[in-house]
Amino acid sequence: MTDPADLSASEAATALRAGTLTAERLASACLDRIDARDDTIRAWAFLDRDLILRNARVLDAAPVRGPLHGLPVGVKDVMQTFDMPTQYNSPLYQGHFPGVDAACVSLLRSAGALILGKTDTVEFAATGHRAATRNPRDLARTPGGSSSGSAAAVADHHVPLALGTQTAGSMTRPASFCGVWSMKPTWGMINREGSKIYSNTLDTIGWFAGSAADLALVYDVYDQEPGSAPPLAIRGLRVALCRTPVWDKASDATRAALAAAGEALSAAGAIVTDLTLPTAFDSLPEQQVLIMRAEGRNALLPEARAFPGRLEPRLQEMVDNVDGYTRTELLAAYDHAAACRPRFDAIATGFDAVLAPSAVGEAPLGREDTGDWVFNGMWTLLHGPNINIPAATGPNGAPIGLTVVGGRYRDRAILAAAAAIGEVIDSR
Amino acid sequence: MTDPADLSASEAATALRAGTLTAERLASACLDRIDARDDTIRAWAFLDRDLILRNARVLDAAPVRGPLHGLPVGVKDVMQTFDMPTQYNSPLYQGHFPGVDAACVSLLRSAGALILGKTDTVEFAATGHRAATRNPRDLARTPGGSSSGSAAAVADHHVPLALGTQTAGSMTRPASFCGVWSMKPTWGMINREGSKIYSNTLDTIGWFAGSAADLALVYDVYDQEPGSAPPLAIRGLRVALCRTPVWDKASDATRAALAAAGEALSAAGAIVTDLTLPTAFDSLPEQQVLIMRAEGRNALLPEARAFPGRLEPRLQEMVDNVDGYTRTELLAAYDHAAACRPRFDAIATGFDAVLAPSAVGEAPLGREDTGDWVFNGMWTLLHGPNINIPAATGPNGAPIGLTVVGGRYRDRAILAAAAAIGEVIDSR
Repeated sequence: MTDPADLSASEAATALRAGTLTAERLASACLDRIDARDDTIRAWAFLDRDLILRNARVLDAAPVRGPLHGLPVGVKDVMQTFDMPTQYNSPLYQGHFPGVDAACVSLLRSAGALILGKTDTVEFAATGHRAATRNPRDLARTPGGSSSGSAAAVADHHVPLALGTQTAGSMTRPASFCGVWSMKPTWGMINREGSKIYSNTLDTIGWFAGSAADLALVYDVYDQEPGSAPPLAIRGLRVALCRTPVWDKASDATRAALAAAGEALSAAGAIVTDLTLPTAFDSLPEQQVLIMRAEGRNALLPEARAFPGRLEPRLQEMVDNVDGYTRTELLAAYDHAAACRPRFDAIATGFDAVLAPSAVGEAPLGREDTGDWVFNGMWTLLHGPNINIPAATGPNGAPIGLTVVGGRYRDRAILAAAAAIGEVIDSR
Repeated sequence: MTDPADLSASEAATALRAGTLTAERLASACLDRIDARDDTIRAWAFLDRDLILRNARVLDAAPVRGPLHGLPVGVKDVMQTFDMPTQYNSPLYQGHFPGVDAACVSLLRSAGALILGKTDTVEFAATGHRAATRNPRDLARTPGGSSSGSAAAVADHHVPLALGTQTAGSMTRPASFCGVWSMKPTWGMINREGSKIYSNTLDTIGWFAGSAADLALVYDVYDQEPGSAPPLAIRGLRVALCRTPVWDKASDATRAALAAAGEALSAAGAIVTDLTLPTAFDSLPEQQVLIMRAEGRNALLPEARAFPGRLEPRLQEMVDNVDGYTRTELLAAYDHAAACRPRFDAIATGFDAVLAPSAVGEAPLGREDTGDWVFNGMWTLLHGPNINIPAATGPNGAPIGLTVVGGRYRDRAILAAAAAIGEVIDSR
């Protein structure tokens, strides 16, 4: 019989509902997997075996709370949990115990999820200390960041689902590097209460999973607007390949992955076209960085003041505005991005999905460089849904992902399109 | 000698620095005032006399931390405090003790402020249960909301400073009704971590005080961008009177207050003109409501799910979207407001200040109706600084305020303009 830790979220949910699996047995299997693997992977910042098994037994004894009943979920350690510490991978917050759940965690618990533990992160999901996590697909490489532990934990089958956040490329990039699926929904769909603020304009909560169907399982819990999107056939699916304004940054492997995806989708009957964005979009990657760092100054000011001289130097530099950004530049970036959002929404309505690179290429070697988010920041700033599909492997055998992008609040449609596209291009 | 509780924040700061007043003595005076008055006013949701005096003695013994050293500040009870409960005026959060400071509170403590206690609020700073607070200027009237306790506590001289939040008109309106000064700075200037989210697009932290100088004292702590604005003379000051697109809602008293202010400012040498906004701005008051309630759905979803059937009915209705707002409408409102922001900034550069009504008129009678925010929502949505000046009294002797409005990040200039305008129109 399959090790329960190897079940997908959807398979585990079915088995839990059917009574052929208990939350306790699934949690035990995840813990055994973590025992076997996490000395190597180091995805977890906090795990309490007794607490997990106790909570699992409570779920097994309770009436079904919702669609995630008994499913273990990893939580990025920038989200507050009432029964576990929240440490942000920051020496300033060791042992920090806020005693309250972030909204995104509370909603999972209300749907029956078992919060397994806290996953390692780049400090404050911003910059500073890197996660200790290694890439399960190639231990010499970064898993990407800042949602390092969540991406690696799902990729290494420690847990079928894990939450992350994205301000630049903190979901899509680690998903690409670790070879898993991820979803960053439309900005504002999920309440960010209790998840560390980096940038109000950009921060978005998302999650990692093994497939489009597993992503949808979580999506349905978070989207309070009733609705559904019918499955889409690949035949006739209108897919736009978007090289983005930063195509010159793409490695040969990423270029090949997008081209190969286009060919495979065409061969499968999709209507594949190229999409060149208006030149007004050229400045968006730069403006995402400006907004993130200008707002990030403010996000870490309380720590800079409360612990003078103790903030990690890269964080302190951001607070000190070493970039020299002005408020005039910030406002111009806000206004330009705001004007581009409805333009992109309108462009995107011409297609069932827009497909773009997820990363420059394979994950960089080492832990310090978590990779470039240049292919992600623009989409985060445009606020629409982004789904990473593991699509190829690079010259060193490490994963390369592609991003399915949609207009704002087209999340259900984009999930359906990603499922159809994944049938053709998912490399695993 | 003056009762220390009657000192303005600036006067108290001077006395504290000079050593003629201690934090403990000032805190004791505030507590005595509260003992004498709060059975009537009911501004406070939580006060711990021993904790306050202990913290005051710590400040008296410590080196000066910053410009607010020893100054007591009231904190709206939707902001987390590590050493006091945070209860949101919600039965769901009685005794709730998150054990962490909101960013806005932490920054005050780093500047030496003494957090005096938690002030009563409309539930979650949204809707639902009203604060128990009475209007100190007329006990039969509402103090306004949602920052009811903070406005009343400053108006009744319980404390020289108090924090509030504004999503529609939750600072400006209570300041107008209670006859005090308030400042809502530019959206995004103050980190909102740990303050209850209602609407990402609108929520702004602000504060109440007795004068422009006292507002500036707090402003300087929060603004991390170094800078200063020279004092402005009233002679030659360019003031635009803006009746706003909702002028038909203004009572005769509000109309008279704006007209009288214009005449007084003219007489004092200001260059007073009328400003009619472009018709594109006509929809902003409605769009503010739409954005607030559409985002508010999502803000209270965790509570609705975690405590089924126990959310206050008006809050539950918002979660249930009784308004029937669609996401298409929400996006259109986002995009329209975003396009109006730089337009208003450009219009505002033609003046030193724009002066507009703060409220329909005097505070309504009773506690249930906290008054209409129709004159505030548009400015909150435009994201620039808003300062209430107590400018007149209505036919029943209750206060009427006017709002000084500026373009985004023109906070220091608007503070300087409000100081000059206040010299002429401050009714107290």
